[in-house]
Amino acid sequence: MTELRHDPITGASVIIAENRAGRPQEFEPVQYAQKKADCPFCEGAEAETPAEVFARRAVDSRPDAAGWQVRVVPNKYPALLREIDGTAGGDAVVDSLFPAQPIAGVHEVIVETPEHLERTSEFTVAALSEVIRVCRDRLTALRATGQLQYATVFKNVGPKAGATIRHAHSQLMAVPFVPSQPRTIMKHMAQYWESSDECLFCAVTQRESQQNLRIVAQTKSLVAFCPFAPRVAYETWIVPRSHDCKFDEISDERVEEAAVLLKRVMSRIDDTLNKPDYNYILNLAPFDSAELQNYHWHVVILPRLTTLAGFEWGSGCTINPVAPETAAGRLRVGGLLSQ
Amino acid sequence: MTELRHDPITGASVIIAENRAGRPQEFEPVQYAQKKADCPFCEGAEAETPAEVFARRAVDSRPDAAGWQVRVVPNKYPALLREIDGTAGGDAVVDSLFPAQPIAGVHEVIVETPEHLERTSEFTVAALSEVIRVCRDRLTALRATGQLQYATVFKNVGPKAGATIRHAHSQLMAVPFVPSQPRTIMKHMAQYWESSDECLFCAVTQRESQQNLRIVAQTKSLVAFCPFAPRVAYETWIVPRSHDCKFDEISDERVEEAAVLLKRVMSRIDDTLNKPDYNYILNLAPFDSAELQNYHWHVVILPRLTTLAGFEWGSGCTINPVAPETAAGRLRVGGLLSQ
Repeated sequence: MTELRHDPITGASVIIAENRAGRPQEFEPVQYAQKKADCPFCEGAEAETPAEVFARRAVDSRPDAAGWQVRVVPNKYPALLREIDGTAGGDAVVDSLFPAQPIAGVHEVIVETPEHLERTSEFTVAALSEVIRVCRDRLTALRATGQLQYATVFKNVGPKAGATIRHAHSQLMAVPFVPSQPRTIMKHMAQYWESSDECLFCAVTQRESQQNLRIVAQTKSLVAFCPFAPRVAYETWIVPRSHDCKFDEISDERVEEAAVLLKRVMSRIDDTLNKPDYNYILNLAPFDSAELQNYHWHVVILPRLTTLAGFEWGSGCTINPVAPETAAGRLRVGGLLSQ
Repeated sequence: MTELRHDPITGASVIIAENRAGRPQEFEPVQYAQKKADCPFCEGAEAETPAEVFARRAVDSRPDAAGWQVRVVPNKYPALLREIDGTAGGDAVVDSLFPAQPIAGVHEVIVETPEHLERTSEFTVAALSEVIRVCRDRLTALRATGQLQYATVFKNVGPKAGATIRHAHSQLMAVPFVPSQPRTIMKHMAQYWESSDECLFCAVTQRESQQNLRIVAQTKSLVAFCPFAPRVAYETWIVPRSHDCKFDEISDERVEEAAVLLKRVMSRIDDTLNKPDYNYILNLAPFDSAELQNYHWHVVILPRLTTLAGFEWGSGCTINPVAPETAAGRLRVGGLLSQ
C-alpha cells in the first residue's frame, strides 16, 4: 500500500512506498554506468521496460519497438501505484495524532532519446524541444483525467542526484494532493498580490534583470538566474518573463526558446563545474485551483556538489559556500575550471 | 562576510558562507578515510587544529597537548565567524524583495575521543557519557553569552552524511536567530497545547509506547522510536518521556541513560544496515523564549541510505521506501542483514 503521512511534530509530508525497496540489502549502491549493450532505455531494448504509454515515433513503427524519438513508460519501481489497492496498512493504527491516507498516482519515465546519451548538454536543440513538447502533452493528458491535483517533471543525473540509470531520462510524478513546497510558494505569491498587486515571480524576475547581479543567460522571453537565497551552490532557475501560470499552454515557439536556454545553462554548468551530478525540476502550478494566478512555472536546476548534513536536517536552514552573485559570475563566463 | 538570506518565493533560509569553500575545484571529493598517522583529531596531533576552547583532560596536562578525553576546538572552516566583519556584501544590493543580514555565530568541533574511532557504536558507555556532558556544558556556556538564540549539536558519519574527517567528532553550531525547523515544531506544539492542554511531544511519545508499533528500544526515562512520518528510511528518534525542555539541565544520571540508549540504537543500526553513513542531531529549544514550554529536546538519527532526488526537492514531500513499522521491527531484532 502507498500511503501519504503527515508528521504531527515536524509537519513533514512523506509518501510511504514499500513497493519501491524492501530489504536492507536493496540500499546497496546500484550499478550506475551501464554500458550501451546493457542499457534498458536504448533503442532495441524496449522489452526491458513496461509497455509504453506514449511515444513520438515514426508513423510506420509499432509501439514498444524501435523507431521512436521520445518514449514514455511507467516506472518499473513506482513510488505511486495507479490504483489504490484494498490492503490494510499492516498493523498501523491511524488516529488523530497520526494522519495517513492511502493514495494512488502516476509515476512515469520519459526516455528522452533512443541514443545512449547522458547529459542535457549533449542534446541538440531540436531533440530537447521534442522532450519538452512530450512533457507538455503528457501533462495535458494527466490534467484531463480529473483525478490528480499536482504533477512535477524532474530529472536526476548521476548517482549523487539519485539516478540509477545512466541513459538520459526524466520522470513525471502526478499526485492527488498539492505538496508543501508548491503550497508555500502559492502562499507567498498570494501575500505579494495582496500587498503589491503584482505577481511575486514577475517582480523577482524583473528585479533580477534590472540588478543584473545574478543573471546567467537569457532569451527573449525567458531568464536564467541564480536565486537570491540558493539552497545549494550554483542553484539556477529558468523563469518566463511574462506571467505564465500553466506550463501545458506553452507554445511550440516558446518550447524551442526553452530548449535553447536549457541547453546553454546546462552546458555552462558542465563546463564550469566539470560535469557535476545534478537534478532539475519543472515546478508547476496545481492542475486546478481557484488561485492559479498564484503560480508561475519555472525550472529549478540543482548541481549536487555538497551534501545536506546534520545542521541542515536539524534546522531547516542550509549553508551555501558560494554566493549566487559569485556563481552567476562564473556561469556567465563558463569554463572557469580550466583556469 | 557571512549573511543570512531569505528567499521571497520559496521561503528558504540560507546562510551564505563564502569562507567555507571558494573555487569550483573545492567541491572535488575529499580524502575521507584518513589513516591514524594522518589524522588531525588523534591524540598527539593537537597542533593540527585551532587552539582548544574547552577540554576534559588530565589535571596535569596542558591545553593543546596530549592527555584529554574530549576536546572542543573552533571549526577550521567555519560556516559562521565569531565576529561580524565590516565588509560590505560585494555588489549585492539588499532591498525589500531580498532580505539579508550579516550574522556571526559559533561553529565548534567536539573531538569525541583521543583514539582513532569512527562510529558511536564503538564507544564505551562511559566515554559516550563524557561526550554528552561536554555538549551540555558547552551549551550552558554559549547560552550564558546572551548573544545567541539557537544552538544545535550534530554528527556526520561517512561521506554520504557530509563528513570529511573519519575520526569521531560532533559539531556545535550556535546562531543569532531561530531557524525554520525549530520554529515549525514550536508552532505545532503551541497549537497542541491550545487544543489539548498537553505537550505534543509528550502525547506522541506516550502514544508510541502504548501502540508499541514503532518502538526500537527504551530505558526508564527515554524512548527510541521510528517516527510516524519518517523523512528517510530507518529514521529514529530518542525522546525523553517527561517534558524536558532544556537539554542543558540534564542530570548526570540521565546522561548515562542517554549514552546507554544511544549506543544501543546505533549498534542496532550498524548491525541491521551494515554500518551505513548517518547523521544525528540533538534538537534543542531556543536559548531563550517566552514559549519554552513549546519544546521538548530530542535526538534525530538519519541513516543516509537514499538520496534526495528531484521529486523531494521540488515538492517538499519525501518518498520513503520503508514504513517505520517495518524499520522498527528490524531494528528491534537487529542483525537482519545476515539473514
